[in-house]
Amino acid sequence: MNEFDFIERVVKGSDTSFAKMGIGDDCSSVPWNRKQLLIQSTDLLVEGVHFNLDNISFEDLAYKALAVNISDIAAMGGQPFWVHLSVAVPEKIDEISLENFFKNFKIEARRHGVSLLGGDLSRSNHDLIINVCMSGLVKKKSVQYRQDFQEADLLCVTGPLGDSALGLWCLQNKIEHVHSSVLIARHHRPPIEWIKAQFLAKQKGVHGMMDLSDGLYSDLQRLEGVEYQIFVQDVPLSHEVQEFCRDQNLNPYEFAIAGGEDYRILFGVREKYFHKLSQAFEVKFAEKIYCVGALAPQSEERKPVFLLQGQSWQPTRKSFSHFNDANDSGARPI
Amino acid sequence: MNEFDFIERVVKGSDTSFAKMGIGDDCSSVPWNRKQLLIQSTDLLVEGVHFNLDNISFEDLAYKALAVNISDIAAMGGQPFWVHLSVAVPEKIDEISLENFFKNFKIEARRHGVSLLGGDLSRSNHDLIINVCMSGLVKKKSVQYRQDFQEADLLCVTGPLGDSALGLWCLQNKIEHVHSSVLIARHHRPPIEWIKAQFLAKQKGVHGMMDLSDGLYSDLQRLEGVEYQIFVQDVPLSHEVQEFCRDQNLNPYEFAIAGGEDYRILFGVREKYFHKLSQAFEVKFAEKIYCVGALAPQSEERKPVFLLQGQSWQPTRKSFSHFNDANDSGARPI
Repeated sequence: MNEFDFIERVVKGSDTSFAKMGIGDDCSSVPWNRKQLLIQSTDLLVEGVHFNLDNISFEDLAYKALAVNISDIAAMGGQPFWVHLSVAVPEKIDEISLENFFKNFKIEARRHGVSLLGGDLSRSNHDLIINVCMSGLVKKKSVQYRQDFQEADLLCVTGPLGDSALGLWCLQNKIEHVHSSVLIARHHRPPIEWIKAQFLAKQKGVHGMMDLSDGLYSDLQRLEGVEYQIFVQDVPLSHEVQEFCRDQNLNPYEFAIAGGEDYRILFGVREKYFHKLSQAFEVKFAEKIYCVGALAPQSEERKPVFLLQGQSWQPTRKSFSHFNDANDSGARPI
Repeated sequence: MNEFDFIERVVKGSDTSFAKMGIGDDCSSVPWNRKQLLIQSTDLLVEGVHFNLDNISFEDLAYKALAVNISDIAAMGGQPFWVHLSVAVPEKIDEISLENFFKNFKIEARRHGVSLLGGDLSRSNHDLIINVCMSGLVKKKSVQYRQDFQEADLLCVTGPLGDSALGLWCLQNKIEHVHSSVLIARHHRPPIEWIKAQFLAKQKGVHGMMDLSDGLYSDLQRLEGVEYQIFVQDVPLSHEVQEFCRDQNLNPYEFAIAGGEDYRILFGVREKYFHKLSQAFEVKFAEKIYCVGALAPQSEERKPVFLLQGQSWQPTRKSFSHFNDANDSGARPI
């Protein structure tokens, strides 16, 4: 049973007359006023599945719970405004840790202009459970849906990939390397990119946006009705990822493509606007955008998705689904 | 550590500039348009704490998860419109049960005009976890906050109390009685009263509203800055509750006052409007409202809260907090 298939099946036929778009995108959206949509996203984080308390501090956990939800708002081109937070707490967790969690959640939220408006607190018999429901607004004329990706557009990302997956790798395999702590930090504190995404969403030629939560390999499969090609060697890698993989004899593209939780933004842009967009982005943020592939017209013969030096390429390590994979260790620290 | 104290402490200082009211009421609220507020409520239900799968079917669980959240919207005088549902599923739960849960959630939601707009589905290592985030709208001129309760107003409820707590009692003590199944059904499928609450919220003389989720005894303690008296013998009891308690030699008021999860609406009404309101309600819904007490002016000497035949009365069984009571069995089936 795959999460996305299941959601599709059980939720189809749901009455979404009130919504502009419902299930299947990063956020739901409903009309807010003449010019804006209210967009909302919810994420349930379960100890032992999404995080492991041996590996992550309560401060980082708070950061990440917030970050992954803001990322969904970002993926629509929106601005996060308020949040509801539910927590169920097992006895093993002391009050100071819990306060620390809430304190840091509020601090990080405030940093992004997000108000903690409400929530629910209760007991849990086994695992620490965190549910975040994030609300934001987006202009109707710049909202980006997944279905907006257009044939022949370039596919771009907002930053290097693979850092988070390698951070997790360091944690799981207890690897000590000069870059371990940086990579782990990127795993625990992924970038929060809504300002960049909001800028991109407004630019000419940008069609379609999503956040990379499960990894390029997995997330691309959620784009329906389009074909695409990714040029493996164009996937950007941080120098930490390059050096770590060289020293550890790992293929960095395995992690950059099949590993998840980088929370960079993937977007489509018409080729003729790419250069100008790239310049404008660099002027504004002193950072680059990276073209990693292109959307192809639907063809009779299915082409390979990943190309390395002209040859079809497949990651050996598929990215995992929390829900699907019974062989998954279950311990996926965030 | 008490849930409400803790929420108050950790959430205070949260930036709620965007919100009309934040933490501490049934819902958060933010301006929706010139005339309406968007109100939102979230509830996290944890297996073994809030429900026990030995006792409740997936159909009833779906109903109750929806009902308790609509109740928060009702408590502000609002209408529920859309919902986000997150579920984390342990391996022991089969796909058919899960589909049943979603199917019934959607059916019940649609019955109340509520659209399932989005959610999250993941794995859990131990317990079934359900988080519901409900959104609704309420007219600014008829929204009812907890702080709106006014001195000297009558305190009224929309229906008999204690049925749900006795249903739970039957489940926990495996009591077979002619009324057991009715009481259990009321525990699993509490009334969804947003239409009544919306009507009441608009009536002249009504000030302040809340839903009775933890029981009169517990919920009243969340009203700050007011004193009140409850006349125990005026608390309405269904004939099932009366007969069950007579046969089982139980004091029905213990359950009606200290037992929770009746999800009736408690509201304040100016005395001179009560009669007219009562009539209008009965004409519209063919049901009664019940006056159970009154809000008193703040006095130097603290008066007893519960009065039985002129004497101070206290429930022997205090209603429990999920979060507080380490001695609680932990198994509180919903």
